[in-house]
Amino acid sequence: MNTEPMRLNKGAERRIKAGHHWVYANEVDQQASPLKGYQAGEVVNVIDHRGKALGSFMVNPNALICARLVSRRADRELSSSLIKNRLKQALALRQYCYDQPYYRWVYGDSDGLSGLVVDRFGDILSVQVSTQGMERCLETVIDHLVRLVQPKGILLKNDGKMRSVEGLESYVRVAYGEVPDEVEIIENGVSFIAPIMTGQKTGWFYDHRANRQLAASFAKDKTVLDVFSYLGGWGLTAGVNGASHVTCVDASGLALAGVQQNAERNGLADKVATLEGDAFEILQQLNEEKQRFDVVIIDPPAFITRRKDIEAGERAYQKLVEAAMKLVNYGGILVSASCSMHLETDRLRDMVRSSARKLERHAQILAEGSQGTDHPVLPAVRETRYIKAIFAAITPNL
Amino acid sequence: MNTEPMRLNKGAERRIKAGHHWVYANEVDQQASPLKGYQAGEVVNVIDHRGKALGSFMVNPNALICARLVSRRADRELSSSLIKNRLKQALALRQYCYDQPYYRWVYGDSDGLSGLVVDRFGDILSVQVSTQGMERCLETVIDHLVRLVQPKGILLKNDGKMRSVEGLESYVRVAYGEVPDEVEIIENGVSFIAPIMTGQKTGWFYDHRANRQLAASFAKDKTVLDVFSYLGGWGLTAGVNGASHVTCVDASGLALAGVQQNAERNGLADKVATLEGDAFEILQQLNEEKQRFDVVIIDPPAFITRRKDIEAGERAYQKLVEAAMKLVNYGGILVSASCSMHLETDRLRDMVRSSARKLERHAQILAEGSQGTDHPVLPAVRETRYIKAIFAAITPNL
Repeated sequence: MNTEPMRLNKGAERRIKAGHHWVYANEVDQQASPLKGYQAGEVVNVIDHRGKALGSFMVNPNALICARLVSRRADRELSSSLIKNRLKQALALRQYCYDQPYYRWVYGDSDGLSGLVVDRFGDILSVQVSTQGMERCLETVIDHLVRLVQPKGILLKNDGKMRSVEGLESYVRVAYGEVPDEVEIIENGVSFIAPIMTGQKTGWFYDHRANRQLAASFAKDKTVLDVFSYLGGWGLTAGVNGASHVTCVDASGLALAGVQQNAERNGLADKVATLEGDAFEILQQLNEEKQRFDVVIIDPPAFITRRKDIEAGERAYQKLVEAAMKLVNYGGILVSASCSMHLETDRLRDMVRSSARKLERHAQILAEGSQGTDHPVLPAVRETRYIKAIFAAITPNL
Repeated sequence: MNTEPMRLNKGAERRIKAGHHWVYANEVDQQASPLKGYQAGEVVNVIDHRGKALGSFMVNPNALICARLVSRRADRELSSSLIKNRLKQALALRQYCYDQPYYRWVYGDSDGLSGLVVDRFGDILSVQVSTQGMERCLETVIDHLVRLVQPKGILLKNDGKMRSVEGLESYVRVAYGEVPDEVEIIENGVSFIAPIMTGQKTGWFYDHRANRQLAASFAKDKTVLDVFSYLGGWGLTAGVNGASHVTCVDASGLALAGVQQNAERNGLADKVATLEGDAFEILQQLNEEKQRFDVVIIDPPAFITRRKDIEAGERAYQKLVEAAMKLVNYGGILVSASCSMHLETDRLRDMVRSSARKLERHAQILAEGSQGTDHPVLPAVRETRYIKAIFAAITPNL
């Protein structure tokens, strides 16, 4: 451990004391503790301007977020026992919430392991590292993952774009055992095959699990349109729950081949159709063909990844909500999902409102969903909260 | 129908066009259309300052909310066929969402019937009316309720405090058939007896149904504390889902007698204890006795009923969240529920944050719940959205 504590500017301790985990470079008193005096990945004590300890933080002197909480106690290393205990506690929470071993085992800061994400697909683990501090102890992490659940294989899916921000190289490699190209996932009782080597992020998005289940509860004997379907997480869950027909839309032919494979796997091949292409164009085309669906689900990729994209991103979302609402049969349900941290629930709700007014519909919000319990939110760290879903019944204007 | 349209001041049409249903007295152009020219309960056309129609509204010239939307079309009466269609549409939505006839059938403005609430308890209906317009057509409403579902009895539980605001008298009477003192309710598969004649509001609160189910999913083999339990909606649902022990706290001995009755009914008598008294005092006492629980649920009555009570109400909520969090075993769950429209989710989330910091706990929000699908929210009418629940896992400070 570097014995030189990192001193913050006056007032900069407030956010940390209020519960946040991150220090920004401009909050450091660079005269007292120049950032260039620290090595990327080491753990140091952070103190306030008076010298009072705020805890132990992993440092990256070259990143905007230059320190991330390890412990609220001083003099704590990112030691093997700390890592083991954090992994165990995170595992206990998931085992409390889920009967089967399919979940995000570690969700970064929320589980006290900033920069580490571990998705569990039965006996295969997919790991993403996005901080220098975590990269330093990767071997220890892998070691404990193996000891705790004896997986058959661990994949390091270290090709996320946050890595370059931290000065980490991009790579994908097997860190332990054998990792197949595809894995089985069981979510809400539905079996999926996901391509973890080549798929998006860790290969599967567990974050909308509860919302997919709720959407499926409206699907019995109904027609369903799943827009931005990826591998069919929403649509096929609806299919297994009795939807009469499911149409999955995605720009990726590979994803839609996955939908077909997963449809067959669940005995839904004759109920599931796919449409490949740009979602906006397909929605418009379906409307021109006067096609209507009982349940329409939109779950786009994050249109808003940076604060400065909010305006353009919200316009795109709004356009999408409107295009989707047009296709909902009267008495049916619009599921408007978002994974953009910057798109607040109030804004999403307001898009449902304004689309309904413009299209002269009566929209009743039946539920508002949040992210799955394996993606716990830190109430002080807004950045950990990103999933929203609004379920609205659509009927004619009053 | 009064042939004199109600003209709004310039700009006052905006909120209505954006989706809201209510006109406030100070938004009316009293020179063009004096409020005293209208009778309480009649339906009139409302127009903007240029004379453009905004729709048909039921009027109460003596109330702050002087007009409420009946239809966005002009010249529509609160006719028998309109009422029938609205009741049918509301029923269709509930039958879509629920397998059994236990739900809020009509939720006022959300169902296009401003001032009407109908709770269905199997073959017994409990009706609340809170506007002059709805009171006027009460016979028509009752008539259609009978025709649509052939209930055994309909209770008019017209003793709510909103009635005096509208100049309506307070009364409770049987409007149709026979109404027993108590009814059976089945919610989340659990059977309850509720005293509909003498109970709170319509006798039962369906609004937290989904949140009770989610809370119960954390309860298997766990100890549960249900504070402000009323008849045991949260606690007994947890009990039926395998809680090892449930303690219900309420200030009302009558409510706790109901808890015991309902516990017996579900074969939980040996697992359920009750504590009668002030919630704050009991929480403090339990803490002094060093008692801890795996799942602690707080679902207080609305501390904040008016905007000016926000500050005092939030202080009381904060105190409650803190007192409850102290009692959660490490690794357990705090369920912080609210039915105050004025308490925003962001504020409730922040109370969890600040209590955790003060008590040196690590709080992870596992889910955020909204009101049941039988209490649909109008996205433009904030007043229709009031239920919140935050589910947080509590562990030691990092």
